[in-house]
Amino acid sequence: MITKGPIRIEADYLIETAVDPMQAAEIMASEQSSGTFRPVPAETPELKLRAAARIEQLEALEPVLTPTLPGAMQPKDQQIWHRAFVTLSWPLDNIGPSLPNLITTIAGNLFELQPLSGIRLLDLRLPTAFAERYAGPKFGIQGTRAFAGVPERPLIGTIIKPSVGLSAEATGALVADLCAGGIDFIKDDELQADGPACPFEDRVKSTMRAVNAAADKTGKKAMVAFNLTGEIDEMRRRHDLVRDCGGTCVMVNLTGVGMSGMIDIGRHTELPIHAHRAGWGALTRDPLLGWSYPAWSKLWRLAGADHMHVNGFDNKFTESNESVAASVASLKDPLFGNSPMCAVPVFSSGQTVRQAAATLNAAGSPDVLVTAGGGIIAHPDGVTEGVKAMRQAYDAAMQGVDVEVYAKEYHELTAALATF
Amino acid sequence: MITKGPIRIEADYLIETAVDPMQAAEIMASEQSSGTFRPVPAETPELKLRAAARIEQLEALEPVLTPTLPGAMQPKDQQIWHRAFVTLSWPLDNIGPSLPNLITTIAGNLFELQPLSGIRLLDLRLPTAFAERYAGPKFGIQGTRAFAGVPERPLIGTIIKPSVGLSAEATGALVADLCAGGIDFIKDDELQADGPACPFEDRVKSTMRAVNAAADKTGKKAMVAFNLTGEIDEMRRRHDLVRDCGGTCVMVNLTGVGMSGMIDIGRHTELPIHAHRAGWGALTRDPLLGWSYPAWSKLWRLAGADHMHVNGFDNKFTESNESVAASVASLKDPLFGNSPMCAVPVFSSGQTVRQAAATLNAAGSPDVLVTAGGGIIAHPDGVTEGVKAMRQAYDAAMQGVDVEVYAKEYHELTAALATF
Repeated sequence: MITKGPIRIEADYLIETAVDPMQAAEIMASEQSSGTFRPVPAETPELKLRAAARIEQLEALEPVLTPTLPGAMQPKDQQIWHRAFVTLSWPLDNIGPSLPNLITTIAGNLFELQPLSGIRLLDLRLPTAFAERYAGPKFGIQGTRAFAGVPERPLIGTIIKPSVGLSAEATGALVADLCAGGIDFIKDDELQADGPACPFEDRVKSTMRAVNAAADKTGKKAMVAFNLTGEIDEMRRRHDLVRDCGGTCVMVNLTGVGMSGMIDIGRHTELPIHAHRAGWGALTRDPLLGWSYPAWSKLWRLAGADHMHVNGFDNKFTESNESVAASVASLKDPLFGNSPMCAVPVFSSGQTVRQAAATLNAAGSPDVLVTAGGGIIAHPDGVTEGVKAMRQAYDAAMQGVDVEVYAKEYHELTAALATF
Repeated sequence: MITKGPIRIEADYLIETAVDPMQAAEIMASEQSSGTFRPVPAETPELKLRAAARIEQLEALEPVLTPTLPGAMQPKDQQIWHRAFVTLSWPLDNIGPSLPNLITTIAGNLFELQPLSGIRLLDLRLPTAFAERYAGPKFGIQGTRAFAGVPERPLIGTIIKPSVGLSAEATGALVADLCAGGIDFIKDDELQADGPACPFEDRVKSTMRAVNAAADKTGKKAMVAFNLTGEIDEMRRRHDLVRDCGGTCVMVNLTGVGMSGMIDIGRHTELPIHAHRAGWGALTRDPLLGWSYPAWSKLWRLAGADHMHVNGFDNKFTESNESVAASVASLKDPLFGNSPMCAVPVFSSGQTVRQAAATLNAAGSPDVLVTAGGGIIAHPDGVTEGVKAMRQAYDAAMQGVDVEVYAKEYHELTAALATF
């Protein structure tokens, strides 16, 4: 039996509003459950008791002098916009434990409510019925380590680069070089799919020939996450092909596929799912709008994401290191008491030998997957040296040795530090 | 043969940036195709020619003095942030005609690029290969009119209210009243799903008993959009149940289900799909982030959305009437020359007898579906009078008669005008 879920569905929000925050919270609760803009006859006290969302907590924050988002109600007198943390709750019986319908309940029309000049979903907690319906990651860190043959240290990975444009054969050749360098993990770029320029089937076959040949020779089989993003039947077929060719991982672009598709491949898969978050920026980049990563990633963990992208330290994107660290921490936050459904944090974006110490420090453990695309493939001495340098950098971090000091013993790392 | 698509995938963006806009556009094109943050050996001129995204157009706009989104690069000297319209294009062969992968290509990591303090996808144009793969709406306005038995005038609809909390039996009783009033269309609220408090199967059976009984009596069969949002197999089963009970429409929450799920039910369906946009606000409410409705809705039209929600005039949300009008117009914008894939605009949110003239004026035709929840169900004289009043208001608008003048002949409309 799964323990330690709340009775009701609970969601935390940051709101900004020109009206009294309690009034704004009441409108949110009403709009997202039994209310509408006019009282209707059947909305009885009994019905409300049964079906209405409730305000569980409200904490006022410092107000601001200008509204963040346009279109909202203006203040009546003082030009002040209140901010507050609000927790709402819903009876599970409104929707049952259904992830697609949960999205509509906790993150539906409320983003457009007139009283709100800011509205962001920060976190959520779910009744255990969700854990009974959704299995969460089938493999997680243990399954990933078992497939990759890396029992303890951080998994060092790379991204096929150029992202697009290589033929299936050229991809296989690059993978052979990466395997020769002792890489643990390789992923398709999220832009690489099943186009005529590099068909999925050809790419899998060419890649797995290289991976299997290296494994036969060295005993080490790199895990390759093939991007099977597509339609439902395509994703199932592609998964089966990867499995039949001896592959050990598949990749899904969460935003492109969506929740119902992810649930389907999550149930179908016999391999770890590497979950990519491309497109996530649209949901999160305005700090007073959309979703925070802890709330968003919990849904995908429930649906079966084994590996979740968290961006990376000193990344090439706009996210701060603090935000990345918070995302990493949130993946360890147990979804349920004895069913934590933790996902492996995947570091990417501008990753090189330079971020190893910060990455391990934030993760608080070696249970991480680090992917460096250009940071390995653009190594001046070649791809195998690029792999070795990354391994050396993470070995140094594991031993608590400064990377510059450690590099004195390793020419691959020295060359990488001179380049990146 | 389908004509009039571009050779390449084309997407238009509004950007804001502290760097030269052309440089920002080059970084966008590079990140979303063959480039990465470091040159890699295989990114040859031949590969770029084959696979790289191109800048097709750039139009500078008035700069601004403060950045819209946080986290972006700062200007080197002058504190000025440039704005520009940018059109990028991609070779179709990078991904082939795949909607889930198209999302990653045109709306993936680029929302997080450091040079961009604003980035919004405004519109897109697709090669005809997409029309060969995706059928678009199977029914559209013609099929909807045929099922609903409403050949020419606007379709008048309502939303079951309270949104949640009614039992299946109570829903059936409400539907009986609505049918007695001559309603054309009824939809589940987007929050109503398949919870234990109102199971889908019971609700469909109870509702269709009322609908079929009314049809036997009057010859008029209301179209009911049952919200089948859920997992893949659930959606198929629910669709089949609706069809088998004589139902004529199903509803999908696009944001909850996602693209791969929508494609699946779009291929499976034998009934028009009523596409709800709950959650859309998170993608669009910041004017310098996310997606515009024309771009977003085109993807769902391709996947098979027959009815697309566009909010409503004088709505209870934050969207302006100008924005609603632009959304309505965009649904008529043909996706391809001889395969326009137009969707029926669905007006909702705070709709009453008061918005009829503006709605028809914006639509430029009576090919619209208007849904009023509280605006019908909260009518002071009852639900059947609420339906009649809405019909009267749209009859007035069709005849070009002022609603207040028209109301002199109709007590239901008079009472509605006094209430709403």
